[in-house]
Amino acid sequence: MPVNLHPPRAEDLLPVRGVELGIAEAHIRKPNRKDLLLIRLAEGARVSGVFTQNSFRAAPVRVCQEHMAQGGQMRALLINTGCANAGTGEPGMRAARASCEAVAKLIGCAANQVLPFSTGVILEELPRDRIIAGLPACVADLKKDNWLAASQAIMTTDTVSKAVSRHVTLGGKEVTVTGIAKGAGMIAPNMATMLAFIATDAAVDYEVLDAMVTDAAERSFNCVTVDGDTSTNDSFMLIATGQADAKEITDTESPAFAALHGAIVDVATTLAQAIARDGEGATKFMTVKVERAASYDEAKSVARWIAQSPLVKTAFFACDPNLGRILAAIGNAGGAAMDASKIDVYLDDTLVSEYGGRAMTYNEADGQRIMKQPEIIIRVVLNRGTETATMWTCDYSYDYVKINADYRT
Amino acid sequence: MPVNLHPPRAEDLLPVRGVELGIAEAHIRKPNRKDLLLIRLAEGARVSGVFTQNSFRAAPVRVCQEHMAQGGQMRALLINTGCANAGTGEPGMRAARASCEAVAKLIGCAANQVLPFSTGVILEELPRDRIIAGLPACVADLKKDNWLAASQAIMTTDTVSKAVSRHVTLGGKEVTVTGIAKGAGMIAPNMATMLAFIATDAAVDYEVLDAMVTDAAERSFNCVTVDGDTSTNDSFMLIATGQADAKEITDTESPAFAALHGAIVDVATTLAQAIARDGEGATKFMTVKVERAASYDEAKSVARWIAQSPLVKTAFFACDPNLGRILAAIGNAGGAAMDASKIDVYLDDTLVSEYGGRAMTYNEADGQRIMKQPEIIIRVVLNRGTETATMWTCDYSYDYVKINADYRT
Repeated sequence: MPVNLHPPRAEDLLPVRGVELGIAEAHIRKPNRKDLLLIRLAEGARVSGVFTQNSFRAAPVRVCQEHMAQGGQMRALLINTGCANAGTGEPGMRAARASCEAVAKLIGCAANQVLPFSTGVILEELPRDRIIAGLPACVADLKKDNWLAASQAIMTTDTVSKAVSRHVTLGGKEVTVTGIAKGAGMIAPNMATMLAFIATDAAVDYEVLDAMVTDAAERSFNCVTVDGDTSTNDSFMLIATGQADAKEITDTESPAFAALHGAIVDVATTLAQAIARDGEGATKFMTVKVERAASYDEAKSVARWIAQSPLVKTAFFACDPNLGRILAAIGNAGGAAMDASKIDVYLDDTLVSEYGGRAMTYNEADGQRIMKQPEIIIRVVLNRGTETATMWTCDYSYDYVKINADYRT
Repeated sequence: MPVNLHPPRAEDLLPVRGVELGIAEAHIRKPNRKDLLLIRLAEGARVSGVFTQNSFRAAPVRVCQEHMAQGGQMRALLINTGCANAGTGEPGMRAARASCEAVAKLIGCAANQVLPFSTGVILEELPRDRIIAGLPACVADLKKDNWLAASQAIMTTDTVSKAVSRHVTLGGKEVTVTGIAKGAGMIAPNMATMLAFIATDAAVDYEVLDAMVTDAAERSFNCVTVDGDTSTNDSFMLIATGQADAKEITDTESPAFAALHGAIVDVATTLAQAIARDGEGATKFMTVKVERAASYDEAKSVARWIAQSPLVKTAFFACDPNLGRILAAIGNAGGAAMDASKIDVYLDDTLVSEYGGRAMTYNEADGQRIMKQPEIIIRVVLNRGTETATMWTCDYSYDYVKINADYRT
């Protein structure tokens, strides 16, 4: 059951000029569900992205990277759920390329102007014939106000689809940012089984767009972990169609950059948090904030150890303020170099640990009251420097095991 | 339910000359259970050890390290279960020291000739009065053939106690190696909530003993993971009493070193595997063997990523040959640098993956047959070099969550 996460409403999702979305039921893995999404982009749209760091990159990721390296203007993105087309060797590459060719033929562009994305079970062959057979229905369905159905068509073990929009004003002109994402398991820093697509009708220079997507990923999707595993298919794509009236952004120091980047980070963060809120079996949403670290890497490492610790996550599931597990996780991140006696730990605003032990002012009733909430902030103050990092995660429940033990059956 | 792990039998555990063990029910956390163990060493015994790398080292670990740094001859080890005396600040240090002083008074030695060890709940005060009150019963119980009861007195969430003995002949003289260990959760490389005590009546030079314990830890306890968490209390102590007739070992290149070290690694490995076999909620025991890596660190990293992946572990619980999760875990370890298409993966002797995909000769019926076994070998051949590493782990079941959500209640 997702934690404080509601299905998006169609009326909250703003169309982005230059972006049309078409959905089909292609029966890729299961009948009678939306499982194929085509995103068509107007001419002139620019696309940048970041991909999984896993050395087993899935075929669609490799084809995306090939097509993007060829430097052409992208005209379409094709996304299927049900099959990840990962660990499928050369036949998988051929299937991904064939899907792009089929899209190209239908919408009138070159195959390397199409980017393929797949999510679902790994090591099974992509049913390319069913995908290609589903494409005409996608094309027939293409429309601007189709973001809600698009967010639903890319779900796997997600229980709620993820989509969000923002308006932002650049030099007096209004532009829109709308994004969708999927992901609930195999979620870890550096992207996980996570697909996210954010589009804006602002005009953004290619290099600036690259900088924007890299930084936005670091501040959002790379701060989420469900199970510490990173998948073979993760992709976060940022699309700027340039169809709004606003002036092109060519400078990362400009006020327009700051405004648009802020809105994109806001959308990306909301989607990233939605992934943890809908983490497999989640009953709680936790924000782990590490402050006053000696370096950003140190802060992020401590936050990640806490957020990924199965012992911490099962304790939160049990509403058990088992501070020792949090301290042990901090200690694992710190190695021998960190002085445990200088660290303060808070649950929400309550100081629970200081001088390497239980805080004098802390009583367990306060801890239990906080632990019963659906959302909890774990704040760790290292008192070693000035850097801060945040991770979002969820607890580990019986259902986490159930979902992952039953996934293929 | 432990996987192919049976309780040790008293008659299989060989006394070690110069070592006496006494057990008491000190009511540290629960009534009517053995929870306090005193190990008395004959004069001249030498002790070496390795400790947790966690920066939140528990008070007893810090006191152990202090006492060992003072270079005296150790005369006793005191081990309690029920309370880890971790995250307890200065009062915890005082409680650990007071316990050592009480032992010293009873057996007639200095306090810094006593080493304290604690395991159990973190962040709760050590009930020093109950421990000290239990000591006379420990002393009264001291005897050489008490290893079975000793192994039982240090259990926490263990379902089976862990103890094993070996005979080995050094220069025609027989010596004995007997060890006990505890640990079932918060188990990860670099020691975990793991206590292990191995004693031999061989005579070993101090420096040689240090080399032996470090190397034995790396080959045994540091190859086990249950949940990726490392605890604040881990300690592995190696005792050489020198009470056998065999000549002192002073050289790590000698045949006697090789023979004794072999026996100690055998005992340590058996105990380490017992910990994974008795992992919290375990239904399967997995050996992850990574071969032909470019370096030992690379081999160990790949093995650890597989052994720690919750997705891999839940798939094994479900008897699901979900090879994709294994490949994804390898890919996480490898980063972008590793060529996935060169890696071969075997389940037992069956080739399941080659060229980055499913092996031509593999069929899922074989995979399912293998996955139904209680013990499975995952063998990964990287084809990048000559180095090998092994990790032992267990699966993730509903009971893992149950045990860890309920532990304090």
